[in-house]
This record gives sequence, C-alpha cells and structure tokens, in this order.
Amino acid sequence: MRFTSDSASHGVREQLFELGDVPGVVWTPDGAGGTRPLIVMGHGGGRHKKDPELETRARRLVAECGFAVVAVDVPGHGDRPVDEELNRIADENRARVEAGEDIAVLIAEFQAMVARRTVPEWRSTVDALQRLEHVGACPVGYWGISLGCGLGVPFVAAEPRVRAAVLGLGGVTAKAQDAARITVPLQFLLQWDDERVPRSRALALFDAFGSAEKTLHVNPGRHAEIPDFEDDSMLRFFARHLH
Amino acid sequence: MRFTSDSASHGVREQLFELGDVPGVVWTPDGAGGTRPLIVMGHGGGRHKKDPELETRARRLVAECGFAVVAVDVPGHGDRPVDEELNRIADENRARVEAGEDIAVLIAEFQAMVARRTVPEWRSTVDALQRLEHVGACPVGYWGISLGCGLGVPFVAAEPRVRAAVLGLGGVTAKAQDAARITVPLQFLLQWDDERVPRSRALALFDAFGSAEKTLHVNPGRHAEIPDFEDDSMLRFFARHLH
Repeated sequence: MRFTSDSASHGVREQLFELGDVPGVVWTPDGAGGTRPLIVMGHGGGRHKKDPELETRARRLVAECGFAVVAVDVPGHGDRPVDEELNRIADENRARVEAGEDIAVLIAEFQAMVARRTVPEWRSTVDALQRLEHVGACPVGYWGISLGCGLGVPFVAAEPRVRAAVLGLGGVTAKAQDAARITVPLQFLLQWDDERVPRSRALALFDAFGSAEKTLHVNPGRHAEIPDFEDDSMLRFFARHLH
Repeated sequence: MRFTSDSASHGVREQLFELGDVPGVVWTPDGAGGTRPLIVMGHGGGRHKKDPELETRARRLVAECGFAVVAVDVPGHGDRPVDEELNRIADENRARVEAGEDIAVLIAEFQAMVARRTVPEWRSTVDALQRLEHVGACPVGYWGISLGCGLGVPFVAAEPRVRAAVLGLGGVTAKAQDAARITVPLQFLLQWDDERVPRSRALALFDAFGSAEKTLHVNPGRHAEIPDFEDDSMLRFFARHLH
C-alpha cells in the first residue's frame, strides 16, 4: 500500500493510496490513532472512489461515528486504465439489448464478471488497511447501491469480517446464491419507481438474503432519487451494529 | 376535559382524563410548561390506551423528544363500556368469515364504522389538549399500527393539524379514498410475513397514500413482530417533522 496524498479538512483525514494497480482513498478522523470499524463503500456504475455523493456519506461516517471509510476504483472506472475487455463486453451487451435480450440478466452477468476481480481486490484492501495503526482490526461494514450492490453482494458473502451491510438498487439474478450466504444484518434500499431495476427482482433479492435481521426501505422515485434521510438511517444502522 | 389522576415517574407526567365518555391519558415532560408537538397514538385491536408497548413508545417520545403524547380508549376497549352493537357486528363477522367471506374486507368495513366515532372523538381530544398550558397549539403527529392504522388513516385524512404520521400493519380496501387524501410525510411499517394483512393489500395501501414523502419499512416476521429498532426510527421521524 503506497500513499500518494495526505490531507485533512473539517476534522477528516483523507489519504489517497495505490494497492498494486488499484487506486483508493481512505478517510479517518483527523489526528486520531487506534482501532476503529472500517466501512467499505462501493461506488456506482460510471462513477469512482471520490464520487461527491459517496464522499459526503463517507465523511459523515468518519465525523459523526468515528469510523474509517475506504473506497477504491472499480476496474475501468476513475483512475484505472480503460479496460478493453470490459468495454468490449459492454458494447456487445448494448447490441444484445437492442436485439431484445433481457437487460437485467446482462447487467447481472456483467457485474458477476467484474466481481471476480473486485472481491479479491477489496479483501486485499481490507487486509492492508487493518494493518494501519489508525484503522486496525475491527468489524467491517459494507455500503453499496446499484453497481455497488451488484459487486457488494458477492463481497459481503465472501468476507467474514463484514458484520453489517447497506445495499440497494439491485435485483436478483446471478446473485441469488451469494445473497443466500449473507447472514449479517442488512438494510436494503429500493426505489419504488426505479427505471432500471424491476420492482419484483429487487423484492426477490431482499427475499433471497439469508439474514435474520434484514430491513427494507422503500421510497417513491426513480433510481437516483434516494431521499437524504436514508443517509441518517445508514449512519445509525452502522453505529448500532459496528460500535 | 376532567382529570382523574396526575402522577410522574422518570421525568414523565401522566394524567388520566375523561372527555365526555371517552377515557384517555396524556403524557408530558414533568415540570415543563409551554407549547410542544402532540402525538396522538391509536392502540391496537383488543388493547387499550395504557397498553404496555404503546406506553413505552409514548414515554420515549416524551423523554427523548419533549413531545406530549395522548391515547384514548377506542369504543368497546379499555375502560369503555361493552358496546353491544360492535359486539353484535363482530359476532356476525365471525359467522361470515366461517361462511367464506373475505376477512380483510370485513375488517375494513368494521374499522370504517368504528372510525366514524373515533375520528370526531380524537379531534375533540386534540382540541381540548391544545387548550392546556403545557401542551398548546403545535403541530400534531399520529402513530398507529393494525387497528391504529385502520382508524388512523381516516383521522389523518380528516385532521389538518396532523403534519406527520407513522402507520402500519394495515391494508387497503375501504380506506383507499382516505389514503389518497393524506399528503403529510408518512412512515409505513409492513411485516413481510404478516398472517393477518395480505402483503399485496399492504403494498396497495402504501401506493394509495397521496404523500410525496412516504417511506416503507419492511421487516421479516409476523404481525406482532416489528423489531425494536423501528421505535428508534419512529422517534427520529417525528423529531425531524415536528420540531
């Protein structure tokens, strides 16, 4: 893990890093040492580790809960190089959708393929961060919606250090088996008028999770219109389960 | 409004009262004067104004948010006399269910009939309480699940002083028109394995509400198994909308 930048504002320290060829960012309380829970945040499709909405949530988790938060760029996103293979498959998928194939199935297949790379990358990131004096080995949380849900389900299923997760804006297909293996407390966000994720598939994913404590928050509006009060709810959910 | 008892414990003042022939209880912060938001709580079927679960929620709203909370006995419940007409209809309904009629429709009809009495009773209660120095004329909230939802929907629809409501464990039928008239922020609770309210009817009630801000919280489990963390969520919801 090689740090490339270290700064602080409003009580939050921000360190950019590279782990192998994966660029990432970790936010922690400025000037604070010692162990603390770590939240892994998965960014959305076409976005990146410093997406403004993600960063706003991350800084609140640090400032209000004292957590560490990490986000890394997904292959083909942010500061990572153009990925010819992913682009080729995305192009093929566009053609297949125009030819009448089910876009939800194609998205799920695509996300499952990307997850074969992100799951080990994110696990290595947690390994490296938990060796830092100001993060340490505490329970881990995961937050991810949309692409961050598609990649998050296999990550949470594979990573026993994750003790609680907020997921959403995703539907069941290839992920059902991973979802069934998840048993930690979950908060799942569903937009009632989501133009990208069919309601029935999102409800089927909620049903598929193996967790005894899972709570579904439905709000009116389209894919990108999650109300701000869900961020407050996310903070309290992680504080309840990770502190 | 005639007070019949006045006591305090753990910083919460409890006054029992009668308004006409309606017995009720109001909880307020002990020793505090001045106006404050008032939460009307509707008890469940077969329960009463001092139901332990309701009182626990009420005392938290007083102690943690500084609100006033009122609950009154529904006709045929608590300290109210046996109601021969309601009993006769309940008996008839049992026979109609055994004869194969739709229990959800019968329950909705029954609740609509009871609501023709409770809506004016509850509105008069709010009138009387808002004349008290330690309650005053502030925004009103409503909380009610199960029977408290069935009676709450027409109350919230009819009472413009109500600015936010937590409802749940209810389904659409006769209440759809009332639900469409409700435009205040709503939090709606649905038990995913509710043995009394069909899931599709509960979702249809959520859809029927006219509110731009409405949020649905789904949890696994049966009718009576709402998780405790929903009480925390309820407190924050009312604090956000009534303070």
